[in-house]
Amino acid sequence: MIHITRREHFNAAHRLFRPDFSDDKNLEVFGKCSNPNWHGHNYTLYVTVKGEINPETGFLVNLKDLSRIIRDRVIEPLDHRNINLEVDFMAGKLASTENLAKAIWEQLEFPVQSIGAELHCVKLLETENNIVEYFG
Amino acid sequence: MIHITRREHFNAAHRLFRPDFSDDKNLEVFGKCSNPNWHGHNYTLYVTVKGEINPETGFLVNLKDLSRIIRDRVIEPLDHRNINLEVDFMAGKLASTENLAKAIWEQLEFPVQSIGAELHCVKLLETENNIVEYFG
Amino acid sequence: MIHITRREHFNAAHRLFRPDFSDDKNLEVFGKCSNPNWHGHNYTLYVTVKGEINPETGFLVNLKDLSRIIRDRVIEPLDHRNINLEVDFMAGKLASTENLAKAIWEQLEFPVQSIGAELHCVKLLETENNIVEYFG
Amino acid sequence: MIHITRREHFNAAHRLFRPDFSDDKNLEVFGKCSNPNWHGHNYTLYVTVKGEINPETGFLVNLKDLSRIIRDRVIEPLDHRNINLEVDFMAGKLASTENLAKAIWEQLEFPVQSIGAELHCVKLLETENNIVEYFG
Amino acid sequence: MIHITRREHFNAAHRLFRPDFSDDKNLEVFGKCSNPNWHGHNYTLYVTVKGEINPETGFLVNLKDLSRIIRDRVIEPLDHRNINLEVDFMAGKLASTENLAKAIWEQLEFPVQSIGAELHCVKLLETENNIVEYFG
Amino acid sequence: MIHITRREHFNAAHRLFRPDFSDDKNLEVFGKCSNPNWHGHNYTLYVTVKGEINPETGFLVNLKDLSRIIRDRVIEPLDHRNINLEVDFMAGKLASTENLAKAIWEQLEFPVQSIGAELHCVKLLETENNIVEYFG
Repeated sequence: MIHITRREHFNAAHRLFRPDFSDDKNLEVFGKCSNPNWHGHNYTLYVTVKGEINPETGFLVNLKDLSRIIRDRVIEPLDHRNINLEVDFMAGKLASTENLAKAIWEQLEFPVQSIGAELHCVKLLETENNIVEYFG
Repeated sequence: MIHITRREHFNAAHRLFRPDFSDDKNLEVFGKCSNPNWHGHNYTLYVTVKGEINPETGFLVNLKDLSRIIRDRVIEPLDHRNINLEVDFMAGKLASTENLAKAIWEQLEFPVQSIGAELHCVKLLETENNIVEYFG
Repeated sequence: MIHITRREHFNAAHRLFRPDFSDDKNLEVFGKCSNPNWHGHNYTLYVTVKGEINPETGFLVNLKDLSRIIRDRVIEPLDHRNINLEVDFMAGKLASTENLAKAIWEQLEFPVQSIGAELHCVKLLETENNIVEYFG
Repeated sequence: MIHITRREHFNAAHRLFRPDFSDDKNLEVFGKCSNPNWHGHNYTLYVTVKGEINPETGFLVNLKDLSRIIRDRVIEPLDHRNINLEVDFMAGKLASTENLAKAIWEQLEFPVQSIGAELHCVKLLETENNIVEYFG
Repeated sequence: MIHITRREHFNAAHRLFRPDFSDDKNLEVFGKCSNPNWHGHNYTLYVTVKGEINPETGFLVNLKDLSRIIRDRVIEPLDHRNINLEVDFMAGKLASTENLAKAIWEQLEFPVQSIGAELHCVKLLETENNIVEYFG
Repeated sequence: MIHITRREHFNAAHRLFRPDFSDDKNLEVFGKCSNPNWHGHNYTLYVTVKGEINPETGFLVNLKDLSRIIRDRVIEPLDHRNINLEVDFMAGKLASTENLAKAIWEQLEFPVQSIGAELHCVKLLETENNIVEYFG
């Protein structure tokens, strides 16, 4: 069993808030991340898959295939987007890094199986200081 | 003469567009950066000042003073903000990294003199791949 | 279950030595790290906690709370300090990165529970080349 | 139980191809990595070992010993070499990052035991975007 | 006047040697970099251009245009190539980082003018430790 | 004319204080950096030299020679040392990053000439946030 990880990037706007909270309550719970005019990040994403090395290629998976899946399923819908308003798989969810990592997992789990690997970890950095990992 | 540089960070939302352009024209000129729903970045800022070493302290300037000026004049107004909507010193300007670096220079030039140094360079990274430097 | 990690920094002096060893013996075992006049490092600390996402906030824990605990219990006592002489929770211990990571774990284990999470890993970088992880 | 990791670097040339494939087939499977004139990388290697802290030294292992083993068994044979042509422990293997990580594990497993630790992970970065981990 | 920098990457094989030197002489002058079986690097390239901000766009140049020029003129010919054997603009030159930086300058100087900027600096990292800058 | 930069590292302890100041005055001016029990840093040093490319080698200087000079004149005296107590070329000087960068310049200026280059810049990072450059 081997693990292989692909790093990708996307830039997006978001806001942490609950529509059923007042502005003051949102500010109290979510701090400046609740700014109604949005803020944003350069997100860094590490997707780790696991499985056996294919003896014919020496690869677990062809990284071009893994990269294409991540682009189609995650980067394309998120990059230069507003996570709260424009990302189908985040609709109705709080746009926290935790929820985003989990949603990215759901976007990738089955497509990764289709190229012969198992999704192991989605690691998402909102900044270099704040890092979420989801293992399914 | 010595140069000293302080690194700081801020996260913000922005959009590249001209109100006098149609949406199609904005998309043509500014690409996905013109998304009307905003996107954002983790900006990294390097502020370099120059001058003589003070023989009493061994410092060009006390970095606490420089850091305080950068916080008050740049980070506080920009961090977790929408650059187009909420930042006084960017009002009416295209929110490009070039214009932002120049506006940060203007925010810092005189306050830096008040602590006995001369502003040398504002270096602003929108991402690790896109970097602007302004020398006044 | 989700994992969230907060990165923090501190700068400190230390020395690797045993008072019951001669200077020569200390030099033999600990090399230049045994210098009686101390040396120091910019330590980087990654604290990982785990638990369930709170559906009300989308957070595992509020990172402000986690960051405050790390500041109070770890950074404040260590930053700009001499690890051998000034840090209560390292008193009487060899100031190795291994022992320091373990002591940081002990500083954090219960406070992290008080904010509703479980401590998962303390990762401590003495330099980019030397990294210790402790999982309890 | 504690984990300690040592980072090392090496620069090498390689090529991904199978001698029983035609050039066209190699290009189809391995892309530009199959270039018959080679290409190369700055590889970054993280070797993680685990075990108990030695109460006499505060160390899991003396990092000088671990570093020497990695130098002798891995860096010396690989650095500034052609992985396909000149590295005994890669002879007859596809020079993929997966196979290289596994071969490095085999180079290190027993020597690491000889200094009183257990090999836990070999993590190999071909680039910052492509990362392989092998846990034995 | 403003400076804008674009970072790009390429991976390549090379060898430092003179065909008119004996193998021993090449080894003496160029060390392990003269290995006849090649070695390679992940090169990082920073291209800095300068000029006036275009008031219509807020840009010095459209980074898509700059990036396209760098891709066509530098990355495409170098990436996954053997610098000694396959790169027209390095033919007959010693494949040192110095010569490569200078040759990249010559590849970029006029195309950069065609998008309305002036080339200011080519900065080329062979590794994080070895960095060349050429200013024309 | 070409510029070439070599990166090196050293770890050291220091303290910012004046013996003619009271402890309170030192604390007021130098903050926690004046801690009488020392603290320390992982310093990163970039040494840039300039000159013409030697057509026989393609090098400005042989980086092995530059690296040896930096090791002998700077890293060896500073690494794992107390800058205030043990470093001849810092004797009697305030151990600020500014003074250290200037003293490193003086250690390197003439030796760099002896290998046929001119010293251009000493860049010293106390942390990733605090950076000093000295150009002579």
